[in-house]
Amino acid sequence: MIVIGEKLNGAIPSVAEMIAERKEDEIRKLARKQAEAGADFIDVCAAVEEGEAETLCWMAELVQSVTDVPVSIDSPNTDVLLKASSALRRPGLFNSVSMESRKQIGRVFQMMSENPGWEVIAMLCDDEGISGSFALGSRLRIFEEIMKKASAYKIAPSRIHIDPMAGAAALMGWEGPGDLGISGYIRAVREIRRLCPEVHITSAVSNISHGLPARKYMNYSFVTLALEAGLDCGILDPLDKGLKGVICGTETLLGKKGEEGCMEYIRAYKCGQF
Amino acid sequence: MIVIGEKLNGAIPSVAEMIAERKEDEIRKLARKQAEAGADFIDVCAAVEEGEAETLCWMAELVQSVTDVPVSIDSPNTDVLLKASSALRRPGLFNSVSMESRKQIGRVFQMMSENPGWEVIAMLCDDEGISGSFALGSRLRIFEEIMKKASAYKIAPSRIHIDPMAGAAALMGWEGPGDLGISGYIRAVREIRRLCPEVHITSAVSNISHGLPARKYMNYSFVTLALEAGLDCGILDPLDKGLKGVICGTETLLGKKGEEGCMEYIRAYKCGQF
Repeated sequence: MIVIGEKLNGAIPSVAEMIAERKEDEIRKLARKQAEAGADFIDVCAAVEEGEAETLCWMAELVQSVTDVPVSIDSPNTDVLLKASSALRRPGLFNSVSMESRKQIGRVFQMMSENPGWEVIAMLCDDEGISGSFALGSRLRIFEEIMKKASAYKIAPSRIHIDPMAGAAALMGWEGPGDLGISGYIRAVREIRRLCPEVHITSAVSNISHGLPARKYMNYSFVTLALEAGLDCGILDPLDKGLKGVICGTETLLGKKGEEGCMEYIRAYKCGQF
Repeated sequence: MIVIGEKLNGAIPSVAEMIAERKEDEIRKLARKQAEAGADFIDVCAAVEEGEAETLCWMAELVQSVTDVPVSIDSPNTDVLLKASSALRRPGLFNSVSMESRKQIGRVFQMMSENPGWEVIAMLCDDEGISGSFALGSRLRIFEEIMKKASAYKIAPSRIHIDPMAGAAALMGWEGPGDLGISGYIRAVREIRRLCPEVHITSAVSNISHGLPARKYMNYSFVTLALEAGLDCGILDPLDKGLKGVICGTETLLGKKGEEGCMEYIRAYKCGQF
């Protein structure tokens, strides 16, 4: 599973303080820890109202000063994504675009077509927003549109991470309004994986348990069900040893680590990953 | 999920000692704890070479002295199962029979046809033993034979717990010899659930992680994947709060607790179940 380390996010109060008070050492430390824990990308999210692009450039510089792990630039604003991308020494990940504005997604794809190696998270929502229907048909229609647009820019599916958007279990339940529940999410993951084995499918794992107690167990269940359906990437806390143990266990049981999966499980345990 | 509490098993050294030294208070205590933790059955397994039936009767008496939770009598020997059943004040569970001997399974079904309320675990193996093929076709053939035989004795599918037999991940891997790996197990669970929604499907959850370190994570992954495929019963440790949290989380995410599943998750948490 591809792990996007989620800890450098200004929406987390302690990180917001690091950003506001420019605590560079603490940000470097969080970056280093996530890299050491095996993150494949380190996400930076400023979550500030003014100077977002500048803040992201500063955060990205700090990350790059301690690790070679690629950076994921996290903003809902395409201008910010593109501006901040100039701070990266090596190709990173845009987190994220959607079909809410076809013009904006086109600008990101244009940049990617000129800069091989860059990847992107594309959310399955469009200009109907989250008030629109998330029925399987709607999600797949948006998926097809994204892939068609990417193809027009000659961007391979392996550079795209589809986020089918999982609603919090406490809000959405099993069915959920407009099929935004967990069953709709799982169906979408399964169908996208069937349609396109090369594309990545990603989700913010801990969103599922938002508002609930004992969140870790719900997260363990969710990541296992999603991996079985076809998820291969997650935005999550790489320092969460329990979650990593469950991911490694699930990948072993699903045969994603081959016949020698249990040896990898034992190795990961011995390395202290969980 | 129906929980068969596994802790009173003579194969566990500390329990073997309780049995050998007739430590009645300790056995009663383990029974009470499992009942309080919500076990639906309390399994008793003597694992002694001599006087197995008498030992089981004694264990069952101790369990029944502290709780009304039905007893599961655990022995590979049909004579022992039938003898020990006389110690039960209310109908219990036979753990287990198989098609290894058609005559033996017939004797248990005969007793069940005369004693409503009794249930049985039937393993998917026959006289070819575990050296035979566990290909889906073989497993389903044995399943059909068991159900046909049960039907001849007028035993409803809801009184039968099918154990599709999960091999340890470390021994069997994903494919495994003769399809005894995890993929074959998951396929069997899914297909049996599709063929017969009323039958119970059960497994000894922690067997999957036999011989591995960090067993709990592998158990969490396994129970989640098995529940998704159609498992509805498990032989497990009801005192393992992590496992119970994962089971409750998975059942909530799978919609098995209905639209109000998250409220149940919160209630179970507040009751201290996990």
